Amino acid sequence: MQLNLSDRILKPDFQGEFTASILAAAASPDLISFAGGLPNPVSFPIPEMEAATKKVLEENGVTSLQYNATQGWPALRKWIAKRYETMGVYGVEADDIIVTNGSQQALAMFGHAFINAGDEIIVEDPTYLVALQSFHVFDPCVLTVTMNPDGIDCEELARTIAEHPKAKFAYLIPNFQNPTGLSYSQEVHDKVVEIIKNSNVMILEDNPYRELRFAGTATNSFGAELGEQCCMLGTFSKIVTPGMRIGWICVRNKELRAKLLGYKATADLHTSIFSQMVIAQYLADNDVDEHIAKTKVLYKAKSDLMVSCLRKYLPAGCELTPTEGGMFLWVTLPNNLSSVDLYRKALEKGVAICPGDPFYEYQRNVSSFRINYSNSTDEAIEKGIKILAEACEELINEQ
Amino acid sequence: MQLNLSDRILKPDFQGEFTASILAAAASPDLISFAGGLPNPVSFPIPEMEAATKKVLEENGVTSLQYNATQGWPALRKWIAKRYETMGVYGVEADDIIVTNGSQQALAMFGHAFINAGDEIIVEDPTYLVALQSFHVFDPCVLTVTMNPDGIDCEELARTIAEHPKAKFAYLIPNFQNPTGLSYSQEVHDKVVEIIKNSNVMILEDNPYRELRFAGTATNSFGAELGEQCCMLGTFSKIVTPGMRIGWICVRNKELRAKLLGYKATADLHTSIFSQMVIAQYLADNDVDEHIAKTKVLYKAKSDLMVSCLRKYLPAGCELTPTEGGMFLWVTLPNNLSSVDLYRKALEKGVAICPGDPFYEYQRNVSSFRINYSNSTDEAIEKGIKILAEACEELINEQ
Repeated sequence: MQLNLSDRILKPDFQGEFTASILAAAASPDLISFAGGLPNPVSFPIPEMEAATKKVLEENGVTSLQYNATQGWPALRKWIAKRYETMGVYGVEADDIIVTNGSQQALAMFGHAFINAGDEIIVEDPTYLVALQSFHVFDPCVLTVTMNPDGIDCEELARTIAEHPKAKFAYLIPNFQNPTGLSYSQEVHDKVVEIIKNSNVMILEDNPYRELRFAGTATNSFGAELGEQCCMLGTFSKIVTPGMRIGWICVRNKELRAKLLGYKATADLHTSIFSQMVIAQYLADNDVDEHIAKTKVLYKAKSDLMVSCLRKYLPAGCELTPTEGGMFLWVTLPNNLSSVDLYRKALEKGVAICPGDPFYEYQRNVSSFRINYSNSTDEAIEKGIKILAEACEELINEQ
Repeated sequence: MQLNLSDRILKPDFQGEFTASILAAAASPDLISFAGGLPNPVSFPIPEMEAATKKVLEENGVTSLQYNATQGWPALRKWIAKRYETMGVYGVEADDIIVTNGSQQALAMFGHAFINAGDEIIVEDPTYLVALQSFHVFDPCVLTVTMNPDGIDCEELARTIAEHPKAKFAYLIPNFQNPTGLSYSQEVHDKVVEIIKNSNVMILEDNPYRELRFAGTATNSFGAELGEQCCMLGTFSKIVTPGMRIGWICVRNKELRAKLLGYKATADLHTSIFSQMVIAQYLADNDVDEHIAKTKVLYKAKSDLMVSCLRKYLPAGCELTPTEGGMFLWVTLPNNLSSVDLYRKALEKGVAICPGDPFYEYQRNVSSFRINYSNSTDEAIEKGIKILAEACEELINEQ
């Protein structure tokens, strides 16, 4: 028979092709990979998870193995709602939370709920590549706003919204942005609030790395000032475990929440109740802040080591965006050299990075690239950055 | 702000409104519910799951908590591939399987991959209501083919395909169909194979209840004869646990599989690797066939009891579709009485059923309804069917 697929699944997927090629390369066992965004396995609370699963199965086994409600496990939603107080958002209720298969699923649900083909949406430039992929499914017109060292460019954002008042939403990552590792300053935060308040644009705030701050002070979540005009994504992937795929979206607008729930029911009924209950039990029986504090000490050391190796080995002219947390550094090559060329060259030498191109909606032959420091041993960082520096050197000399 | 949602999420959702109202009603603790499709919790292997989780965390903790590949855990896919031999399908490889969040997610992925707005698809009439919902997301033209006591109406299927040769796929549930509880006979199976082989229509075979046969002989999976022209959905929900949301789709066409994998990566990266590894460990360390055999003894007794109560208490003129397995019975009221009216009346008396209407794409005021026998105690079955019979009686007398 002849396959006769939908137009939507046959569309080119620039981001997808990149990630597929990076993943394929990463399968090589000898590769030093700085390309992904994996937590360090040292940070996984394995014995605590064992205790939590035992308790869930012994005390509540039937519930943990049976079908459950689409919205998610109440005790877990209650914990998440309360957690928003640490981000300056008060009055969030358990009913405002929908538990999803990682915050990734919430991105797809949000695109589904908002985007008609041709609708305008706003993203930071660059932005998280899989968010771009999720939105592309629905054929939006993507408006990009420059990401500055202190956050999104407010003048450009204001102009974009003035020129495109019907833009459906703005997808923002205010802390340790993926890919740049940059955070919004308080000033930028306040300006964004002002611009958005006077518009009809919804904010979709993604904040997977906020808890991983090892220096400086975080701004509040935009939900603090914007209320229903801000939906907030969250995840346990970076602070407890990504393997269980437990994320959430906080939606305080009732109508939108009902629509998202209806769609999630159709998409997969509900997220693994077993995983949800195990995480809820883990949170009830352990001090997650202590766990996060330990993880931050580890990541700060990794970040410091990688920064010092980059400064030591990279050829002159390479620039480095400093970060105060998260998992990534963002490096820019001199002379408009292509990060895709560097990616290929470094890969031949056994080191993977993530070139900048797939993080941009329109720009190509980008000179910047993302490197992850959370998931490598100190030895791999030292060795990998040396090799990367050699590749940079060669690229510059070939010019 | 004013919410400005997508057209697609604002569409009326007949099936969704029904299930929401049934779920809301089911929240009442005194209700006897025959409306859902839940396994009996007595069948959950709780101590075995505890042993499996302990082993996974102790022997492979880091892997079970880290990100993993989109396609799913290799050991689990290998088990699933081998299992197809029991359905007459040989040569299925682990690489043909994509693990999904229940087979529900695979339905959504399939709709995404095949349906452009207006594309024709074929379903049994009646069919699984959430499958209809999943497909509706993509605005298909739904062609319905009557479900007879021995399976889909072959003459009607042949005519439908002859008149609509561009139909993208036919969604079939050959064993203990949801909602009717009916199965395809060998004769119908063979005719369907012949019709499909000579067409360009893909079969999407859904088979969640096949393992729960307590009488008669099952036909092979359509994949045995149709090869790449048949994609096969499966799930652990009815034989081990639905709470972990582990299902799959077997796709032997490489191009389609790559497209589905690309979409799944965007939708939620991957299905909980923790849950996948726990189920794989459970399957490695236990005799699942023995477990299924016990479940079947339980379900046969429940089915026998419910059938005998229905025969004893229901007023004359009510008809009952016998089943040889699965979870459901399908009852038809006399005199074209409406099952929605019965649903409302029974609900007032504290018993929930699932009226026929949402299982049909076009028919309304349907006289048939679905009742589930797997998830009630014997006392609830006896008491609930008595009440249901009273409601029937009243409905007939009001006519």
